[in-house]
Amino acid sequence: MNLIDWGTTSLRAVRVNSAGEVLAEHTSNQGIMHLERKSFESVFDSVLIALNSMNTVNPALNDSKNASPTLLSGMVGSRNGWAEAAYVPTPCSVVEIAANLLQIKADTFIVPGVSHMQGDTADVMRGEEVQIVGAAQALGLQDGCFVLPGTHSKWARLADARITEFATHMTGEAYALLRNESILAKLMVAAADEIWDAAAFTQGVQTAQSPGGVLHHLFGTRSLGLFGKLSAEHAPSYLSGLLIGEEFRSALANARPEQVTLVGSHQLVQAYATAAHSLGLKTVRAPANSTWLGLYEISKLIAKK
Amino acid sequence: MNLIDWGTTSLRAVRVNSAGEVLAEHTSNQGIMHLERKSFESVFDSVLIALNSMNTVNPALNDSKNASPTLLSGMVGSRNGWAEAAYVPTPCSVVEIAANLLQIKADTFIVPGVSHMQGDTADVMRGEEVQIVGAAQALGLQDGCFVLPGTHSKWARLADARITEFATHMTGEAYALLRNESILAKLMVAAADEIWDAAAFTQGVQTAQSPGGVLHHLFGTRSLGLFGKLSAEHAPSYLSGLLIGEEFRSALANARPEQVTLVGSHQLVQAYATAAHSLGLKTVRAPANSTWLGLYEISKLIAKK
Repeated sequence: MNLIDWGTTSLRAVRVNSAGEVLAEHTSNQGIMHLERKSFESVFDSVLIALNSMNTVNPALNDSKNASPTLLSGMVGSRNGWAEAAYVPTPCSVVEIAANLLQIKADTFIVPGVSHMQGDTADVMRGEEVQIVGAAQALGLQDGCFVLPGTHSKWARLADARITEFATHMTGEAYALLRNESILAKLMVAAADEIWDAAAFTQGVQTAQSPGGVLHHLFGTRSLGLFGKLSAEHAPSYLSGLLIGEEFRSALANARPEQVTLVGSHQLVQAYATAAHSLGLKTVRAPANSTWLGLYEISKLIAKK
Repeated sequence: MNLIDWGTTSLRAVRVNSAGEVLAEHTSNQGIMHLERKSFESVFDSVLIALNSMNTVNPALNDSKNASPTLLSGMVGSRNGWAEAAYVPTPCSVVEIAANLLQIKADTFIVPGVSHMQGDTADVMRGEEVQIVGAAQALGLQDGCFVLPGTHSKWARLADARITEFATHMTGEAYALLRNESILAKLMVAAADEIWDAAAFTQGVQTAQSPGGVLHHLFGTRSLGLFGKLSAEHAPSYLSGLLIGEEFRSALANARPEQVTLVGSHQLVQAYATAAHSLGLKTVRAPANSTWLGLYEISKLIAKK
């Protein structure tokens, strides 16, 4: 079958056999922000052609050359994507997610996002729910706190294999703006010359736990630079620590788990693990292929329909 | 005498008589960020020529045509200004500030900034100390909490006429970045079409007091927009309320005064007063000419030398 993770800026796709083993991979920069609605179908067709014309990674695994079904997850199911797949509300498990797939072609389904009511509005995710399903399956977890770092980081609670609540933090986006566009950028070297420094990062994480507030601590980054206490090479690590530290401070203020499960790219997971450890939390890392594992879990429930 | 408020982006100057009454005014966009170090003296000379060649606002006030001394405050005294005037540490009153003027020419002095130690670094201000001196004098205050909203807002405590501590919040700069450059900008009308809405602003202020953290509440702005709970015209007011509300939350977390004195431009002071009232704080507004009042107070101490 074909599994496609179709996000805002890029597209990743794999063909897997009936055991979920990867036969072929395809990636492109054809994220939804680069596409008009009428382009989705032709891009989709070209992805399937690419996947199916490729030699399999390991021919011995190949048990389903003309694979079906095809599952798509991520922002492809948003209002600005191919077609809008309505959010499934919390609490929900893989069962409710699979029951609410949006069929867009024969044997082709878009995975819905998940919404969590907050007052008179809702927080939302698209794509992360698949990663959580995959990570929980791979790690054998029915309960726990899952953290998915990124431009818009997610903190989700799993209880009895259901996503019961989650919150988004605009950490990655705030970091990019402050690091590149604010007065703080003048105290920092070009991105190519910066050095990730665990000590500066941890100092930022710890400062974020102290009183004063993040808007004040941000200005403190400038003071540290002016007073020669923070080098231009290490300042980006400190700033990253401040913002990720503020994310942890806020997320842990209400409920403090003993352990968090980190799901995402190696570099971000490394930074979040450093932050978690400096705050006395244990961490577990989800496998890098959690998206494929999650889509595969969902696909098994379609087959049962 | 001549009083010059020489900041990062602009320059304002007045000539006053021996009673501090304004005789002539001059403003330009020759802020320090637009000048090389060697240009300061010629810009300074041209400002004095402009002030002294002008007809006085009210000839009856004119008692000192060839006025001296000349006082300069603001970023002109920073490392990137005309000459660096070393910070005076807290606690300090107008006496210590006046005792540490940097003489740069005959009868011409740069007012030093103020620093407040925090751990192994310091928070800093340049120019705001003059506004605090002027506001306190005008309002007859020896004690209190002074708030100076802006790109980098200052919260300062005055006790026995001395600035004892202060903290900077990067509120205005964060607002500009998030309002114009982030994903939230897509939910907002162009600046020319936005409508300041007190209800949306106050909702933002109140949301900032609730658990979750500002990085989470920022993403909530997007959710409110997506779910049709916040119009594109009012979204900038909500965002402004969130950030100013976070500033108040942080500043009030340790010590909560009954009243704050607001010093600054009318529009920002109006927004901060709305925030303060929605949080149960009384406000007093400093006069718009607090900078000139403060420089005049400092000048009286030079005369006594």
